[in-house]
Amino acid sequence: MIKFIASTDKFVEPASLEQKVAEAKALLHQIGADPMAGWLDYPASYDQAEFARIKETAGKINADSKYLVCIGIGGPYLGHKAVIEALGHTSSTQILYAGNSFSSVELENTLAQLGNADFSVYVASKSGTTTETTIAFRFFKQALVKKYGVEGAGKRIYVTTDRSNGALRDETIKNGYKMFIFPDGIGGRFSVLSPVGLLSIATAGIDVDQLMQGAASEREELLANAGGDAATYAATRVCLDAQGFGTEILAAFEPSLRLFGEWWKQLAGESEGKSGKGIFPASVTYSTDLHSLGQFIQGGPHRLFETILRFATSPEGLKIPTDPTNLDDLAYLAGEDLGLINQKVLEATVKAHSGGGVPVLQLESPDLSARSLGALIFFLELSIAFSASLFGVNPFDQPDVEAYKTEMFRLLGKPGY
Amino acid sequence: MIKFIASTDKFVEPASLEQKVAEAKALLHQIGADPMAGWLDYPASYDQAEFARIKETAGKINADSKYLVCIGIGGPYLGHKAVIEALGHTSSTQILYAGNSFSSVELENTLAQLGNADFSVYVASKSGTTTETTIAFRFFKQALVKKYGVEGAGKRIYVTTDRSNGALRDETIKNGYKMFIFPDGIGGRFSVLSPVGLLSIATAGIDVDQLMQGAASEREELLANAGGDAATYAATRVCLDAQGFGTEILAAFEPSLRLFGEWWKQLAGESEGKSGKGIFPASVTYSTDLHSLGQFIQGGPHRLFETILRFATSPEGLKIPTDPTNLDDLAYLAGEDLGLINQKVLEATVKAHSGGGVPVLQLESPDLSARSLGALIFFLELSIAFSASLFGVNPFDQPDVEAYKTEMFRLLGKPGY
Repeated sequence: MIKFIASTDKFVEPASLEQKVAEAKALLHQIGADPMAGWLDYPASYDQAEFARIKETAGKINADSKYLVCIGIGGPYLGHKAVIEALGHTSSTQILYAGNSFSSVELENTLAQLGNADFSVYVASKSGTTTETTIAFRFFKQALVKKYGVEGAGKRIYVTTDRSNGALRDETIKNGYKMFIFPDGIGGRFSVLSPVGLLSIATAGIDVDQLMQGAASEREELLANAGGDAATYAATRVCLDAQGFGTEILAAFEPSLRLFGEWWKQLAGESEGKSGKGIFPASVTYSTDLHSLGQFIQGGPHRLFETILRFATSPEGLKIPTDPTNLDDLAYLAGEDLGLINQKVLEATVKAHSGGGVPVLQLESPDLSARSLGALIFFLELSIAFSASLFGVNPFDQPDVEAYKTEMFRLLGKPGY
Repeated sequence: MIKFIASTDKFVEPASLEQKVAEAKALLHQIGADPMAGWLDYPASYDQAEFARIKETAGKINADSKYLVCIGIGGPYLGHKAVIEALGHTSSTQILYAGNSFSSVELENTLAQLGNADFSVYVASKSGTTTETTIAFRFFKQALVKKYGVEGAGKRIYVTTDRSNGALRDETIKNGYKMFIFPDGIGGRFSVLSPVGLLSIATAGIDVDQLMQGAASEREELLANAGGDAATYAATRVCLDAQGFGTEILAAFEPSLRLFGEWWKQLAGESEGKSGKGIFPASVTYSTDLHSLGQFIQGGPHRLFETILRFATSPEGLKIPTDPTNLDDLAYLAGEDLGLINQKVLEATVKAHSGGGVPVLQLESPDLSARSLGALIFFLELSIAFSASLFGVNPFDQPDVEAYKTEMFRLLGKPGY
């Protein structure tokens, strides 16, 4: 479903690229055998009963809450927010986010936004001990108890956490919150298409059946071809990095995909960036950022490449109004479809940037639907598992994030530090 | 007012840094002599009558409009939006943005958001021929005329454009829109503290007097010291780049500063990124992105450095609630001020990242007020003028952005292409 399009002969020797693709494909078995590769089979093997319970719970939240406050950080923040922004929110429950920073101002604003409206709280955290998340949860628990009493509050708290361990799991069971399982073999950055992301996505009114079916069918297609285009994309990236193109810019032409870029940056950066390896992940929204970073991309050091997300079809867009005075000199576009203009701007960007010595890769999705986005998410997850493996690092760990946490706990006076 | 804090002896030879600082300071005269350095004296020499007219106009918009739709792209989009998000919106007029992409979906959403409410339109563009801006302006003009008639619409359109040239200027004069001057010697990315940015910032309820006074007093301090810390920061960046640290990450610990990072990315990238020179500008919001890019920064290739924005004082924050059950193990933080916790997380990040081999620079501002933000904007503008000059490129042009525009006009069938 997802097509990889690139012509990189100018930058990478075709024979070495071919060899790297073969190397990637040969790693599929090793990737699949990793205990943290649970996301790889999940779209084909997830617990249907739990999935039904997620949709049912979303319906309950839609019926009794104007707001759902989603508390989480990292994957359990970026994943669902990216999907909801990309596909657009259609339900009566507005989604708010908390616990993704230590900002007091932001937390105050979110608490204030609740006003007197009915709300529920959703916490997603594997360990349940992430400090940002735990702090925010205290505030919103307090607000819930104030409004609904202890028992009423407990019925408005939803949790996705580890099946058998952790403080959050213990609290959830003790207080009888409704609980979903953060699957054992799935890390935060690979978790969006699991209960972690699905509860809020369903609450936002997005068709989670289509999302999962898109991932499942992409999975089938890629695994039938030892990784297919996901392996080719990964191999191309690793070859470009070896040629000195150490920064990748993921570019989308819809502002609604901004958060999707943030999600991908975590997926790519946290999976590859270890032992001195990895490609620096950046993201842009075009044409907005053609007017800010366009000059650097075209004229700065030739150390970066671009990956452009494109859609084979786009919905009918607004038509440029006619204006007989034509004082703005825009008559040549009057009556034209803005969506089609945007596609032409994409073509122009590909041409200008490739012509300027920037390797331009493209990922084409049929459209921006739940089904296609599910496919794209799976494609990118598999592709990053390939590239990290090609770099010779473990795609699923994050050994270096403890450094700042240790310093932080020491400065905060946490017992034991 | 803005203090530069860094210890880079591990990465840059102190003597060569000292020499580079001297080299930067010697360039101040050349920078000031450039016809596009109008921003350098602007805070001390701007037209007080026009400034008064801007504040008066903001008051009129507050009185008659629920929404002000700001149409612009590049500097005339990122600049004012960054300031408004950083300082927070306090007036009764909500600010909307348009004309900063070709997205039909986004434009439809913004048009729909207006509903039946009263609104005004503000267009900022030097040439007045930027395609995104011109297209959006057509749609909102149409909406204004539909609601208020041709004459009424004309009284709700505000324009900042070139004094003597361009299609937008001609239309503005012909139709009698209220016009402000896009100053001759100021380019888009240096324009936020001019009428370009000030009209919407004032409409949002921000104290533009304080903003300009902050810039003016920072200007005085820096120019009295041949560039002062702005020169030192610039020289440090250029020396780090020469040592292979070709990416800079601007980090803030308040989500409200996200757009400020985007504004800076244009300022830095578009000024430096030419003739194969320049530092790749990226930005992050912490602690959010410690949970996404933290691993890469700490463990990936040592080709990047960080510049952390910090504030000497922060307003009193929320206090962590007490919870006798302590199921979340957070008792050690109960009663603590969240703002102070955020500061400790900043300290921990500096320590962890420096310890991990990442050069960490810091810019300390007294606080996050209009006055301090005006100072910071001026500091960064001067510092980027220094660094681009040290790279031997013209800080004020953007010779390579025409490439995609030429391709685009050709594909769109614009006459003459």
